[in-house]
Amino acid sequence: MDADTGSHERSPWLRKIHVKMTKPSLRDNTADADRLTRALEKGLQDKTVRIPYSLLSDIPRRLRELQYDCMVAVYEDFGSWKAIDLFAPDSKNLAHGVALDLGTSTLVMRIVEVETGRPVKEISFHNPQTQIGTDILSRIHYASDPEGLNKLQEMLIRKINQELSGLACTLGLKPDDILGLTVAGNTTMTHLFLGLDPYWICREPYIPVVNKPEPVTAADLGLNINPRAPVIALPNVGSYFGGDLIAGILASGMNHMDDICLLVDVGTNAEVVLGNRDWLMGCAGAAGPALEGGVASMGMMAGPGVIDKVRIDPQTGQVEYHTIDELPPVGICGSGLIDLVAQLFLAGMIDLRGKFVTAKCKDRLLEIDGIKHFIVVPADESAIAKPLTLSQPDIDSLIRSKAAMYTILTTITKTVDIDIRDVSKFFIAGTFGSYIDPRSAITIGMIPDLPLEKYVPLGNTSLEGATKVLISREAREECYEIRDKITYLELNVNQEFMNLFSAAKFIPHTDKSLFPSVKPDAP
Amino acid sequence: MDADTGSHERSPWLRKIHVKMTKPSLRDNTADADRLTRALEKGLQDKTVRIPYSLLSDIPRRLRELQYDCMVAVYEDFGSWKAIDLFAPDSKNLAHGVALDLGTSTLVMRIVEVETGRPVKEISFHNPQTQIGTDILSRIHYASDPEGLNKLQEMLIRKINQELSGLACTLGLKPDDILGLTVAGNTTMTHLFLGLDPYWICREPYIPVVNKPEPVTAADLGLNINPRAPVIALPNVGSYFGGDLIAGILASGMNHMDDICLLVDVGTNAEVVLGNRDWLMGCAGAAGPALEGGVASMGMMAGPGVIDKVRIDPQTGQVEYHTIDELPPVGICGSGLIDLVAQLFLAGMIDLRGKFVTAKCKDRLLEIDGIKHFIVVPADESAIAKPLTLSQPDIDSLIRSKAAMYTILTTITKTVDIDIRDVSKFFIAGTFGSYIDPRSAITIGMIPDLPLEKYVPLGNTSLEGATKVLISREAREECYEIRDKITYLELNVNQEFMNLFSAAKFIPHTDKSLFPSVKPDAP
Repeated sequence: MDADTGSHERSPWLRKIHVKMTKPSLRDNTADADRLTRALEKGLQDKTVRIPYSLLSDIPRRLRELQYDCMVAVYEDFGSWKAIDLFAPDSKNLAHGVALDLGTSTLVMRIVEVETGRPVKEISFHNPQTQIGTDILSRIHYASDPEGLNKLQEMLIRKINQELSGLACTLGLKPDDILGLTVAGNTTMTHLFLGLDPYWICREPYIPVVNKPEPVTAADLGLNINPRAPVIALPNVGSYFGGDLIAGILASGMNHMDDICLLVDVGTNAEVVLGNRDWLMGCAGAAGPALEGGVASMGMMAGPGVIDKVRIDPQTGQVEYHTIDELPPVGICGSGLIDLVAQLFLAGMIDLRGKFVTAKCKDRLLEIDGIKHFIVVPADESAIAKPLTLSQPDIDSLIRSKAAMYTILTTITKTVDIDIRDVSKFFIAGTFGSYIDPRSAITIGMIPDLPLEKYVPLGNTSLEGATKVLISREAREECYEIRDKITYLELNVNQEFMNLFSAAKFIPHTDKSLFPSVKPDAP
Repeated sequence: MDADTGSHERSPWLRKIHVKMTKPSLRDNTADADRLTRALEKGLQDKTVRIPYSLLSDIPRRLRELQYDCMVAVYEDFGSWKAIDLFAPDSKNLAHGVALDLGTSTLVMRIVEVETGRPVKEISFHNPQTQIGTDILSRIHYASDPEGLNKLQEMLIRKINQELSGLACTLGLKPDDILGLTVAGNTTMTHLFLGLDPYWICREPYIPVVNKPEPVTAADLGLNINPRAPVIALPNVGSYFGGDLIAGILASGMNHMDDICLLVDVGTNAEVVLGNRDWLMGCAGAAGPALEGGVASMGMMAGPGVIDKVRIDPQTGQVEYHTIDELPPVGICGSGLIDLVAQLFLAGMIDLRGKFVTAKCKDRLLEIDGIKHFIVVPADESAIAKPLTLSQPDIDSLIRSKAAMYTILTTITKTVDIDIRDVSKFFIAGTFGSYIDPRSAITIGMIPDLPLEKYVPLGNTSLEGATKVLISREAREECYEIRDKITYLELNVNQEFMNLFSAAKFIPHTDKSLFPSVKPDAP
């Protein structure tokens, strides 16, 4: 939860400022709004201050109630400051805002004390749009009817409002006390949040409605925070490179580093950014849901009872596993799956093509409808009264996904003529990145065989980046600089790509010299 | 209707601009909104262009319909440009806007071709708020209840919408084709137009809600023009010095002149501005409605059949009059009233105190309930089958008003230690100013005895100023410069003021040397 930008300067673009005005008199009968503006401009280094129309009519009453002595919430907007609201000077003096990670399946929301940057409280919940479709494409299809688009936006906003009011309530905050919101999501989710039709996003040549959305107000979206609070959606580079990745770059700080770094966000799309302070190159490609555990028959998202770690004794073939919260096992998540396949390979129970080696698997192999299944957890140990098994197609699917990931990494480094071993940091974004064992990911040839210390799991970089933008003018400006700096590499699935892909469809790779550290333990 | 700023530069802040974009492709998959912004910024000298949220969702469809070739209406807003709407390139290529003179009793609305500055059509109509109260104070009182305020604003906006749609229709314009509106009115009327409570305007220390209202959109006010069209209300200096007078200064151009000029707006309040390019001083004081003909028993606003000119033969005492449209007389307007009293004085039929001289008036005098009445039009000539008469109290009231006006002029020139004879131009604003005969106004001692060529009637300066602001960035900026430059002279009704007032309550004045040109014709 470290939201500090480290050594970089940070000044708030959203804040509360105390102003005490001289009361009106015949000697100074400046109008109320202009009196407030004058006092604010004095306190804000003579920058222009604007008062939105919706606040204007309330100002005379509020100023008189507060005796011309108040805290004013303001935010910076295109070089001037805009007033959001007036508060009593004895009100909670620090401005609160919300950073939102707008995931396709999960949303994470964090309340932050903006001036100090202190994260106050955090909550995560399912994206209610999964009722319409778990994947983005089905939501885009649903949104092609204006009523569908409205419904998708509404269900999202309603759910956010509901979770927000609970969160605010436990903190003793009123909706009006929440003065800003930043949101990082992929391009389609950002469109759905803003009520913009993503129709052209999935159609060649893949055109979003907007790359750099301007700040809107909470009232524009129906968000139940202060109606004049600015809502800032992080910009996207294109249909397949969204604000979540811009947030990732911000969170990693790679855009400030001298050495070349890699940032990988693993999901249905494998998203990769390569670069340093001088240049940034990004690409995204379909990896399939296998890396997230989304395809395997026993696969599921990380949660209580889900297997996240696996060890296999190469001598005995004995499977040991760890479940989240150490509950009886119910399934396996992406990181557990990668562990499992890596351990099966090291134990010689699958070969370099990922095929089960019957002689090694022995009685752990089952055949159902002609398809081989490996029993990971026998029925008597599992929480679902059935064995948890890994099938041959599950492994094939994972291998295709890991091969896609490795090929994308190879392609992007080849494009800029860099040896992947010269990458100084390999950042892994996402919750998945925090759980994954890089050793296992290397073993299956999903990521390159770099010294383990180069791998840096970053956790929820989408939330982290949104938080940085919320609390720092510099980060807010930086996200547009990053956006404009990125060269997006359109993955051209040509013969060369297919050759690289084919070579990567082995464990760890056809070219073993690329993975010198991977040595099967099997006798 | 000359709305040109003369020798000064004029560049539009509201305009249509033609942009032709390259269509999206895999080589350039910039989002639709950003593509539009990029093209606009290129066409607008690299100034930042912003697309309002309400337009955003419509952009993909519109751009595709228009094949990425369109006219875009834009306006300048705090250093950047904001898009208003997209039009087909073969649509009427010039932007249309509306200048509005928001009078207490009458509204005048002018449709203008913004880029050329050409006035297209004009209409005037009664302020519907007169149903609530003819004077400003009763409306302020009515607005003190929020429902009353809403009603006052609504009736105004509804009436404007009604007149606008008629006007637009005759010109073949759709509401969406009207892209901006500027409005000049007194401070209270501007508040009521914007839906701001004028409660504190009439209460010491006389504080408006706002002096410099920011641009709002037509949608904010419910105006039936393009919903994103900017609406700009001219700023006020204070409760008693409104945007109408700022418009007057703009229209007169006195703020560019080397020599000292005076601008007078005659109404219930006498509003006076003195100054030149270096300084401006303004003041306003109650003059009473008499100068507008609003009190006299036969007084009425200028209109068909209303007497606007009077001549009396000093030999015979014969009254000759002229009516508007030369119809049978129904009443007398302010300028007619001033003419009448001046002629009565010159013919010796009233004395220097304004009292009827029975010997001279002869059978033209009637006495009703002990009050003397002068028959201006006998019953058989009048259109109302009754004689039109001027009573002694009518004259007394006019004298008080003219004395107030003269005293204000004396006070403001004394304050800056200037001899009123050194004023190079004496601008008279308002329709009233166009009808008035300066010779008569001098005769009754309402305005100083300056050479007639110094008097310049300006017509509807409120409308003229609003038009200038609509068509010119320079004028739009200038109105804020003027506002900030004006020193407002609070009229201190002390003994000295009362002495000056008493001296001015004679025709033309107790000090005849101030009016050397006024010589009664009476034998």
